Amino acid sequence: MINSKLPFILYGGDYNPDQWPQEIIEKDMHLLKLANINIVTLPVFSWALLQPDEDTYNFEWLDKIFDLLKQNNIYVCLATSTAAQPAWMSRKYPEMLPVDFHGSKRKHGGRVKFCPNSTKYRELSVKLATKLAERYKDYSNLAIWHVANEYDNYCYCGHCQEEFRQWLKNRYKTIDNLNNAWNMNFWGHTVYSWDEIVAPSALNEMWDGPSKTCTTFQGMALDYNRFMSDSILACYIGEYNAIKKTTPDIKITTNFMGAFKPLDYFKWAEYMDVISWDNYPSYGDSPSNVAMSHDLMRGLKSGDSFMLIEQSPSQANWQPYNSVKRPGEMKLQSYQALAHGADSVMFFQMRQSIGACEKYHAAVISHADSENTRIFKECAALGKELNALGDSIIDSKYNSKVGIIFDWDNWWAVEFSSGPSIELKYLPQIQKYYAGFHNKNIPVDFVKPNDDFSKYDIIIAPVLYMLKDNVADNIKNFVSKGGTFITTFFSGYVDENDRVKIGGYPSELRDLLGLWVEELDALPPEINNSIQMNGSLDNFDYEYKCNMLFDIINLEGATTLGTYGSDFYRGRPVFTCNKYGNGDAYYIASNPETKFVDDLVTYLDSKHSLSLSLGCDIQFGTEITKRVKNDKNIFFILNHNDKSITLNLKNKSFINLITNENITDDLLLNSRDVFILEEII
Amino acid sequence: MINSKLPFILYGGDYNPDQWPQEIIEKDMHLLKLANINIVTLPVFSWALLQPDEDTYNFEWLDKIFDLLKQNNIYVCLATSTAAQPAWMSRKYPEMLPVDFHGSKRKHGGRVKFCPNSTKYRELSVKLATKLAERYKDYSNLAIWHVANEYDNYCYCGHCQEEFRQWLKNRYKTIDNLNNAWNMNFWGHTVYSWDEIVAPSALNEMWDGPSKTCTTFQGMALDYNRFMSDSILACYIGEYNAIKKTTPDIKITTNFMGAFKPLDYFKWAEYMDVISWDNYPSYGDSPSNVAMSHDLMRGLKSGDSFMLIEQSPSQANWQPYNSVKRPGEMKLQSYQALAHGADSVMFFQMRQSIGACEKYHAAVISHADSENTRIFKECAALGKELNALGDSIIDSKYNSKVGIIFDWDNWWAVEFSSGPSIELKYLPQIQKYYAGFHNKNIPVDFVKPNDDFSKYDIIIAPVLYMLKDNVADNIKNFVSKGGTFITTFFSGYVDENDRVKIGGYPSELRDLLGLWVEELDALPPEINNSIQMNGSLDNFDYEYKCNMLFDIINLEGATTLGTYGSDFYRGRPVFTCNKYGNGDAYYIASNPETKFVDDLVTYLDSKHSLSLSLGCDIQFGTEITKRVKNDKNIFFILNHNDKSITLNLKNKSFINLITNENITDDLLLNSRDVFILEEII
Amino acid sequence: MINSKLPFILYGGDYNPDQWPQEIIEKDMHLLKLANINIVTLPVFSWALLQPDEDTYNFEWLDKIFDLLKQNNIYVCLATSTAAQPAWMSRKYPEMLPVDFHGSKRKHGGRVKFCPNSTKYRELSVKLATKLAERYKDYSNLAIWHVANEYDNYCYCGHCQEEFRQWLKNRYKTIDNLNNAWNMNFWGHTVYSWDEIVAPSALNEMWDGPSKTCTTFQGMALDYNRFMSDSILACYIGEYNAIKKTTPDIKITTNFMGAFKPLDYFKWAEYMDVISWDNYPSYGDSPSNVAMSHDLMRGLKSGDSFMLIEQSPSQANWQPYNSVKRPGEMKLQSYQALAHGADSVMFFQMRQSIGACEKYHAAVISHADSENTRIFKECAALGKELNALGDSIIDSKYNSKVGIIFDWDNWWAVEFSSGPSIELKYLPQIQKYYAGFHNKNIPVDFVKPNDDFSKYDIIIAPVLYMLKDNVADNIKNFVSKGGTFITTFFSGYVDENDRVKIGGYPSELRDLLGLWVEELDALPPEINNSIQMNGSLDNFDYEYKCNMLFDIINLEGATTLGTYGSDFYRGRPVFTCNKYGNGDAYYIASNPETKFVDDLVTYLDSKHSLSLSLGCDIQFGTEITKRVKNDKNIFFILNHNDKSITLNLKNKSFINLITNENITDDLLLNSRDVFILEEII
Repeated sequence: MINSKLPFILYGGDYNPDQWPQEIIEKDMHLLKLANINIVTLPVFSWALLQPDEDTYNFEWLDKIFDLLKQNNIYVCLATSTAAQPAWMSRKYPEMLPVDFHGSKRKHGGRVKFCPNSTKYRELSVKLATKLAERYKDYSNLAIWHVANEYDNYCYCGHCQEEFRQWLKNRYKTIDNLNNAWNMNFWGHTVYSWDEIVAPSALNEMWDGPSKTCTTFQGMALDYNRFMSDSILACYIGEYNAIKKTTPDIKITTNFMGAFKPLDYFKWAEYMDVISWDNYPSYGDSPSNVAMSHDLMRGLKSGDSFMLIEQSPSQANWQPYNSVKRPGEMKLQSYQALAHGADSVMFFQMRQSIGACEKYHAAVISHADSENTRIFKECAALGKELNALGDSIIDSKYNSKVGIIFDWDNWWAVEFSSGPSIELKYLPQIQKYYAGFHNKNIPVDFVKPNDDFSKYDIIIAPVLYMLKDNVADNIKNFVSKGGTFITTFFSGYVDENDRVKIGGYPSELRDLLGLWVEELDALPPEINNSIQMNGSLDNFDYEYKCNMLFDIINLEGATTLGTYGSDFYRGRPVFTCNKYGNGDAYYIASNPETKFVDDLVTYLDSKHSLSLSLGCDIQFGTEITKRVKNDKNIFFILNHNDKSITLNLKNKSFINLITNENITDDLLLNSRDVFILEEII
Repeated sequence: MINSKLPFILYGGDYNPDQWPQEIIEKDMHLLKLANINIVTLPVFSWALLQPDEDTYNFEWLDKIFDLLKQNNIYVCLATSTAAQPAWMSRKYPEMLPVDFHGSKRKHGGRVKFCPNSTKYRELSVKLATKLAERYKDYSNLAIWHVANEYDNYCYCGHCQEEFRQWLKNRYKTIDNLNNAWNMNFWGHTVYSWDEIVAPSALNEMWDGPSKTCTTFQGMALDYNRFMSDSILACYIGEYNAIKKTTPDIKITTNFMGAFKPLDYFKWAEYMDVISWDNYPSYGDSPSNVAMSHDLMRGLKSGDSFMLIEQSPSQANWQPYNSVKRPGEMKLQSYQALAHGADSVMFFQMRQSIGACEKYHAAVISHADSENTRIFKECAALGKELNALGDSIIDSKYNSKVGIIFDWDNWWAVEFSSGPSIELKYLPQIQKYYAGFHNKNIPVDFVKPNDDFSKYDIIIAPVLYMLKDNVADNIKNFVSKGGTFITTFFSGYVDENDRVKIGGYPSELRDLLGLWVEELDALPPEINNSIQMNGSLDNFDYEYKCNMLFDIINLEGATTLGTYGSDFYRGRPVFTCNKYGNGDAYYIASNPETKFVDDLVTYLDSKHSLSLSLGCDIQFGTEITKRVKNDKNIFFILNHNDKSITLNLKNKSFINLITNENITDDLLLNSRDVFILEEII
Repeated sequence: MINSKLPFILYGGDYNPDQWPQEIIEKDMHLLKLANINIVTLPVFSWALLQPDEDTYNFEWLDKIFDLLKQNNIYVCLATSTAAQPAWMSRKYPEMLPVDFHGSKRKHGGRVKFCPNSTKYRELSVKLATKLAERYKDYSNLAIWHVANEYDNYCYCGHCQEEFRQWLKNRYKTIDNLNNAWNMNFWGHTVYSWDEIVAPSALNEMWDGPSKTCTTFQGMALDYNRFMSDSILACYIGEYNAIKKTTPDIKITTNFMGAFKPLDYFKWAEYMDVISWDNYPSYGDSPSNVAMSHDLMRGLKSGDSFMLIEQSPSQANWQPYNSVKRPGEMKLQSYQALAHGADSVMFFQMRQSIGACEKYHAAVISHADSENTRIFKECAALGKELNALGDSIIDSKYNSKVGIIFDWDNWWAVEFSSGPSIELKYLPQIQKYYAGFHNKNIPVDFVKPNDDFSKYDIIIAPVLYMLKDNVADNIKNFVSKGGTFITTFFSGYVDENDRVKIGGYPSELRDLLGLWVEELDALPPEINNSIQMNGSLDNFDYEYKCNMLFDIINLEGATTLGTYGSDFYRGRPVFTCNKYGNGDAYYIASNPETKFVDDLVTYLDSKHSLSLSLGCDIQFGTEITKRVKNDKNIFFILNHNDKSITLNLKNKSFINLITNENITDDLLLNSRDVFILEEII
């Protein structure tokens, strides 16, 4: 539970009273209650107000807000306000200001804007967090801590370079090890002392390519990403430790951003008491991609409930076209979060600002300053429903038989790769396979390469380019005991330093997959080849398109399921299966069209009974998930279609958790309707 | 009159004898006379020649040119040559060199290249202007002064930052006022002293977006634009004052660039004795957009005649595809300038350079160095015609019943806005409504939001996003007395600091328009909705497409004229009219297709009799304007079509001002023909 | 001969044993022998290994490699390893690090990364080259020297600026000459001392345009390119001289990159003992463009055999889509090099790296570490064939009756030009005319504007914008003696400083061409005009499309062959011929479609018998070239088509130089097949 004293769904979000006069704040209390809000996050960006100079802290204004909130029975997600240091601080300690990728020293302004290795930043941010903890440790409405905000601040300054050298010394011990790990004899990069190492940036090893950031030294660039992720994490940990000392029973989090590339959230998750994240789908994003982000966030702490800590009640301001959320869309997205493991629904923001860049970002209370808006009414109605749910879904579990391996190091390495194709990106490959399962309402977990896979029937690892130590053994162990493993082209190439394992790809997975890859052809994306199925699996089509990358493989025991239909490797295997111990290992040697993945999932479902069943036919666009609490199955049914659907649930018995009514008839779901049903057994 | 001693149309332009040997200059005199040139602008870029070092001025070479010009009866538009400081000066005073938006200190070179707040620049430019004025104050062919050239030099250096703080102190008096105006508690930007303010640039608050420059703090960015426009203007004013002291009777100008975003030309116009501007349409620019620039320039000084001070005799060099002007095209564009209020036709340039980047820009005398070119002959022929016009159109007036509100602050604010759509730009919205009127030969003036509107029947204010103090009252006063007001989506949002006026858009215009806007939806431009007319106005179609932005409005008295045809706000009003006092206030809640604007204009024309009438049918592409002098109506008729047209003018009597003949027959206008006809009453 | 002791085709390429342990290196020897490799290039990037600090050189590891190579009878192309200085050196001498075009000081890293004017770089690189020469002067397997690698390092640092001023002093002697050459009175750029000259960069005179680098001062930018090309060449010459002193009999080269814009390879060629270059066609590159690069490289030293010193055995890593070379494609491309004058076939690289950015670039020995790959087998097979050729083609000559003028200064000037069209680029214009001849198997040489043209029948000079001193006379002399000259729009405009020669384009070529150009219209590329032929030449079509640029010309003696079909210059000449002395001078006034060039070539071929004949019909896509050795004609026949072709060679007798068999039957060439046939007379 996010807070053991609060056995209900947290509903609320960011609130910035520091931008408003007293009379508005008082009005807000009334409106927040009307909207059935029970928690607000603050103060997210008030460092300058809280500390007008190095020797002075000013909490009185915040005390008053806290009193008001308490009077209104609204809980507080207490933010440490350390995402943006005050202007006086940047002026006094210019070393706090970062240097960007292109070598420019930044000036004070914008948003997240400190060098993560700045000693002064770390000292002063921890000091503020400490002061806040000491002042509010006994505040009874304190629900949870929120450190800083959306960390995202790589830096390339001289001090970071010094720290990078230290970090490398810890990692590699000797300069020979480093030369070896990075293959530094290439292009004569050999170094003889730690002082010769230069941080990679646009001024030497890197540049912005048309679709990705490029580098001449993948190993170095990977280590800089790791170092930066660690450096920024250290800022968080500093505050965490300070707070924990004073309020050991209150959980601490910082708001993540889904599949956010710069930070290795799996590593960060170890230091989170609870995962929380900000969900901002763009116009036209598929429900599957949003669901995937939720599942990834849930996976960070092995399935624990997470917090939806930010979403917009309606439009954003920073997207190219900031569409308003259609009637019911906000509710649908809120329930989708719960359906995938969230125990809170929180917004950015309670009241819309009147100045600066987020003023056209929607809020519960809009510029109209009224409860008589569509958005306000939808928020209030949702709050009422969530309230009705009580603790019914809190801390419930999400059970999956399918795991998808996700790995930030692998992501970085795949996209730092020079060749074979600028089209190859990690996330779309993950999304493609995830969508295949999600669209059939098959629960999926995201797992790390070294996790224990014994609870899964199937492990998918699209583009498992980097094979860290023991990963191959972990997978083989899983398959040999009966598991099913699926991987693709560009897998099994390198170690954790992006050094190729020579002797034939996919190196340590060769025997598992029963093949080796001799060549990897890359063609412009508009050029298709085909996967021609040989009929050994019966629910597949005769032929599928594939493009982008094309392994030319030699079999060493695997069975061919499909072959290329054209080009000089026509007839060579493109889809194979290898028996290994008691399990199966599938290999997909090119980038197939979606329909191939759909049919593969159908095939796997028929073998492993993976789909959630309501005992009736389910139409496409109907998302179903299941959370289990105290052995009770709670089904979430979401209609993402633009039109209504009807479900015949007569084969099972359910109770509607919002209305507490039994389901006796066909279930009619209008567009964007949601039902949360507990199965009666 | 530009110069009371010169009661004729000034014809000539930029001349750079400093690039040529004596024999060429003497040949030029002959050729300029052949071309019927009566004025040349010089020396525009000769600071280095005029002042070889700080203590030496060298005017002798210029004296000789001036003598030659006088001998040839050619007048001088005397340029102060201060647009580009000499290399020795940049070397001696490196603080003159600006810092660009991305923080790079510029090196000497290029074109306009000084920091506008450089004390040395201001001192030395004023000194040069003073010296020039003293030397040539008695030169009898001195017609007008031309300060610097095409000012355009924002700077982001440390000195500008200091001056910005001073400028802010003057504007806001207290740091609290500034924090409040910019809403600085947002993202913790609160400052406690003026020294904490950092100029906004790409190194902190700003960045180049895909279609516009973006900022995190609109108020700050707006003020920096204002400050820069003022700083650059101060350079001009310094020279102006120095010159005025010595030659009080000679008018002073600097060449503007039409709808040029960086400088608030309405404010600048207060310091101009006469407006002058450079007209460089690109291949394919519509006549309407060019006409609009002329009208905007005329509007800067409330309808006074302006100068066309630069245009190309044929092709430019800096456009992507520098097409030559088709036979007659230069003449047509020249007369279009006169038709909209110009009293001069001037070119860049007299003779084509042989080196550096403008050498492929056309000139009256081309590289062929001959009078036997098409361009030369067209120039000479035009000169002859202009000469024949004498003073007939000089200082004549342009009368409009329609005003369009134009405001640089609003332009900046609309495009700094983060959200709702990257597609929203100010100028295209103005152009769309302007074109509706222009295409029907309805005269339009450009006005400031606080102008007295009593002379107009109709005021249009597309995207009047910023409502400065008293503007709402000014408009309401106009409407209540019987005026017609038309505005659109994204109007009435903010005050002059881009602070939203809460309580429901369009804030102070709510009662005028009889509605409030609850939401503003934004969709990708390829997604259309429709305006479905309810039949209450009879010259409209049944339905029009609209896109980009979609207000969802609630009526408070207004009458619905059209409703949305689709999406969840189908049936909600999108086009309304509200009676207010004796007038009407129309609201257009989305971005309609052109045909809607055309039909709206037809409707307004039928109510208000706005079109200029020659007593006959007019074909599309025939532009007609009217200037009035001594109660005589002078009609300009321009055929922009590729084919000839015939006008039946028998209902009225006219005299052709170029040939002095009466119009007795049908008037045949071949493609690009122009007639200037005085109506005989 | 590349090395007089090695009368055979050099086959091998880059080898980086410094990246590998001893056991791999020993395995390599075995594999290289299996692949019939006879030469390796090394050490290309080993400066840091060879010189661990300023006082220490370490050659022992290289000695061992050299011993091994000798034991295996593999020759050495000895690289000086100076393309990338060691990290310790950049740290000790930061002045070695260049400043980029945008003014950023680079940090150590990446690839070619030294300021070419760095005194320390020059001193230390020459010292290393000297040490290498001294150590290996008696190494009997030393075949050739390879200085640095792919020079490409413009710099904009303060020291380069100083050196630029010196370079300008040498060129112009007086500041007046410089002001005059650059037309510095334009935009007031007049300078009074050499110290006022600022190197042109993105911080003053230049910027990156949408399709080209732009400049405000063409003369200055041209000189900076010349200065940089010279500066970088000086680095090469320094090493060259040092090496030559010690090993006077071993030839020296550095690897060129084909039509590489930054370096004036014609000037560089004077300092090369033999030309060598790196051929990396991209997916879809036409055989004609590749052939053109070979011919250009052969032309650099007036037809001497050159070296193909790098190509990929299969895919690259740095292209957007790194396709593998199809079966036979590598062989075809190798033979195409020989067909155009190469005497070597060399690869980058022998063994594929395991780390850093080139690890997915193909190699003879791939990551599979095996001889059982397609690529290895194709390499080995080709080695065997080349071995069979012996010295049969070594030092043979390539005879052409057609010359195309190519000039780096002209290239730079055309593309620095501001106007008339951003579409105008030099290389595509050269490629278009080259392809016309190449596609008909007509041999073409590339020549400099001042070369002796007496051996040619036809000289083509597309876009001969810059007419250096004596070039017009050289061409006129050629034509007057009976030669045929063809040129196009935008020719004869400027002198070598990009100063326009006034009096009518094409200035000194007016009498030769019998016309002058009055205007040059430029239109967007999608707008076509047409060339309407008047029937005086009979193998032409009635009409051809043309676009981009359109000269409006006045005839002064030339005969019209075709006229414009539309626009206001409809009926004006667009294709003309002028008799001059005993020859003909053709002018093409617009940018014609390819078919026009094809028909022009057919016409010229019919007049001058230019095509190589095998006595039979030749199908499109069959490339035929001829090299002549000891009066024997050696024909290269390459099938670039995807399908097989059959040639009937019964009219002549040939011997297959690879199999030593007589050709008695029809010759069947499967897709990508190659035959090398000596004609038996």
